[in-house]
Amino acid sequence: MSEVEEFRSFRSKMNEKVLAADNKVLKRIFSLDTLAFKEGTLDEKTKEIIGLTTSLVLRCDDCVKYHLEKCKEVGFTNDQIIEGMSIANLIGGTIVIPHLRRAMAYLEALDEHETEV
Amino acid sequence: MSEVEEFRSFRSKMNEKVLAADNKVLKRIFSLDTLAFKEGTLDEKTKEIIGLTTSLVLRCDDCVKYHLEKCKEVGFTNDQIIEGMSIANLIGGTIVIPHLRRAMAYLEALDEHETEV
Amino acid sequence: MSEVEEFRSFRSKMNEKVLAADNKVLKRIFSLDTLAFKEGTLDEKTKEIIGLTTSLVLRCDDCVKYHLEKCKEVGFTNDQIIEGMSIANLIGGTIVIPHLRRAMAYLEALDEHETEV
Amino acid sequence: MSEVEEFRSFRSKMNEKVLAADNKVLKRIFSLDTLAFKEGTLDEKTKEIIGLTTSLVLRCDDCVKYHLEKCKEVGFTNDQIIEGMSIANLIGGTIVIPHLRRAMAYLEALDEHETEV
Amino acid sequence: MSEVEEFRSFRSKMNEKVLAADNKVLKRIFSLDTLAFKEGTLDEKTKEIIGLTTSLVLRCDDCVKYHLEKCKEVGFTNDQIIEGMSIANLIGGTIVIPHLRRAMAYLEALDEHETEV
Amino acid sequence: MSEVEEFRSFRSKMNEKVLAADNKVLKRIFSLDTLAFKEGTLDEKTKEIIGLTTSLVLRCDDCVKYHLEKCKEVGFTNDQIIEGMSIANLIGGTIVIPHLRRAMAYLEALDEHETEV
Repeated sequence: MSEVEEFRSFRSKMNEKVLAADNKVLKRIFSLDTLAFKEGTLDEKTKEIIGLTTSLVLRCDDCVKYHLEKCKEVGFTNDQIIEGMSIANLIGGTIVIPHLRRAMAYLEALDEHETEV
Repeated sequence: MSEVEEFRSFRSKMNEKVLAADNKVLKRIFSLDTLAFKEGTLDEKTKEIIGLTTSLVLRCDDCVKYHLEKCKEVGFTNDQIIEGMSIANLIGGTIVIPHLRRAMAYLEALDEHETEV
Repeated sequence: MSEVEEFRSFRSKMNEKVLAADNKVLKRIFSLDTLAFKEGTLDEKTKEIIGLTTSLVLRCDDCVKYHLEKCKEVGFTNDQIIEGMSIANLIGGTIVIPHLRRAMAYLEALDEHETEV
Repeated sequence: MSEVEEFRSFRSKMNEKVLAADNKVLKRIFSLDTLAFKEGTLDEKTKEIIGLTTSLVLRCDDCVKYHLEKCKEVGFTNDQIIEGMSIANLIGGTIVIPHLRRAMAYLEALDEHETEV
Repeated sequence: MSEVEEFRSFRSKMNEKVLAADNKVLKRIFSLDTLAFKEGTLDEKTKEIIGLTTSLVLRCDDCVKYHLEKCKEVGFTNDQIIEGMSIANLIGGTIVIPHLRRAMAYLEALDEHETEV
Repeated sequence: MSEVEEFRSFRSKMNEKVLAADNKVLKRIFSLDTLAFKEGTLDEKTKEIIGLTTSLVLRCDDCVKYHLEKCKEVGFTNDQIIEGMSIANLIGGTIVIPHLRRAMAYLEALDEHETEV
């Protein structure tokens, strides 16, 4: 299984289990997550790049992976994504670099995955 | 002195002192900060909202104040700014709320400051 | 105005303004906050001490102040509160100490405030 | 080797090596860790749920695994553990979700491990 | 009262109250803090600059103030202190800059305080 | 491939890709990283132990691995490295322990790697 498939499959399997636990707070956090990224006074693209860059400064690899996918879906080019990540790197410092390296590898994995499908 | 003036005056006074210390690394970090927010493959507005939201999830009040000013300068409305901050609040959690409260107060102070000038 | 009154008054004034901004995501985060601390399979006391200690390791002074009040309200003694904070201090490290100092001062301010009222 | 055994074995092997390094500060931190979680004015259960939730907001997977085990040992049900984690998730934000997914998977691994033994 | 005196007086007053609370864990953390910075295989100067820079990347203003004092006491020049802080700034990112500004102001306040005494 | 080789190979492969992306901000952050650790008013050894300990309190395993290598290169003994890490552990709290365990394992892997080469 490719890195992309592995990430997606663990993520969706465990999300289901979280929701199955039937905890109201967790359920509402999950549904809020959907609501927050819908077009509002800010368009979807702006929101997705916010999702990516805040995830990167907070150094959450899985969140970065998820938002890399979303950023590509809403139409950002790799150059734009990398430019967004460069701001996150400056704000978050060199401590972010290992996460950037993994983000670059995942961006590549996403591109390969596209080609194969 | 208003909150806005106090913030700006301490910030610019101390920035000068940092630069006067003549440390190459600090000087380059400061000039990188200017470079990073210039229009590139992403436009200035997108970059500024990234600056604001990453600052908010990292819970840096002064960084938030600075980027609130910049966001208004590049043309975001208060509603758009608040919508951006709402995403940061969801991603960063309720621990961000006290910083949001101070951000809202500063946004108001900025509006009042504009009117007076 | 005492430290306690000042904190409460700024907090409630700005919470109102946040809610007045009429942003759905923020409104739901606020109402989730109420829901999460209601008695469930864990009792209210346990939830409040969780609120306090997580706020302390995340080094959010205002969140700590708020949860100190709540912890006293649900019946924790100062000794119990301090014991909870000692765990947070060990887990979060000596970087937490300045926040502990401010928490101790606020705990005292709360006791004085009670006596006066 | 199951996930549970792998975690425990690496943890205890490396803890021994840390202690063997014969550094006074590290040794005392380790012994403080034992002291802090002993029953005092707060009972052991309360302390363990504090250990779990502070670890979760600080997004430390290994600390979460360790405290999940302890929480089960002192008698928390899975529902109570999940309710505790839901508060941590709200306070720490959606950035905590990937850690929650891994915590849920480990909780399941612990249950399977129990059954096998 | 100068910024230096105010910081020192609040710090020592509250430290006393923390210790008076007679919590074993907190007492041991405090005494460990003294032990950790004593000369060992690393000399005191190296340890103090570690104290300063780790405090700065963790963005704890009070910890930074305390370690600025200690760094000067053990003989670091302002240039060396600023060079140490520049590394912390690069590693921790531009989010550290507001803390650097306050550190620079405190360094100045310390120098003025010396002159007066 | 040993842990040491795996780390180095992924690191250098991805660093190349980051630089190949030809983003000015990222390129300058990378070159600043080299500049910052060069001897100045502080010597190289002091700078490397700062690099290690700040990485550890920020809980970045890959940054720790990199600085462990550098600390050994500039002549620190394992005892000195561990003493530096003990300060980081006290400042950063027990949440740092899992990262310390991994650091100890990598220190051992580095020693084995040396012997083999």
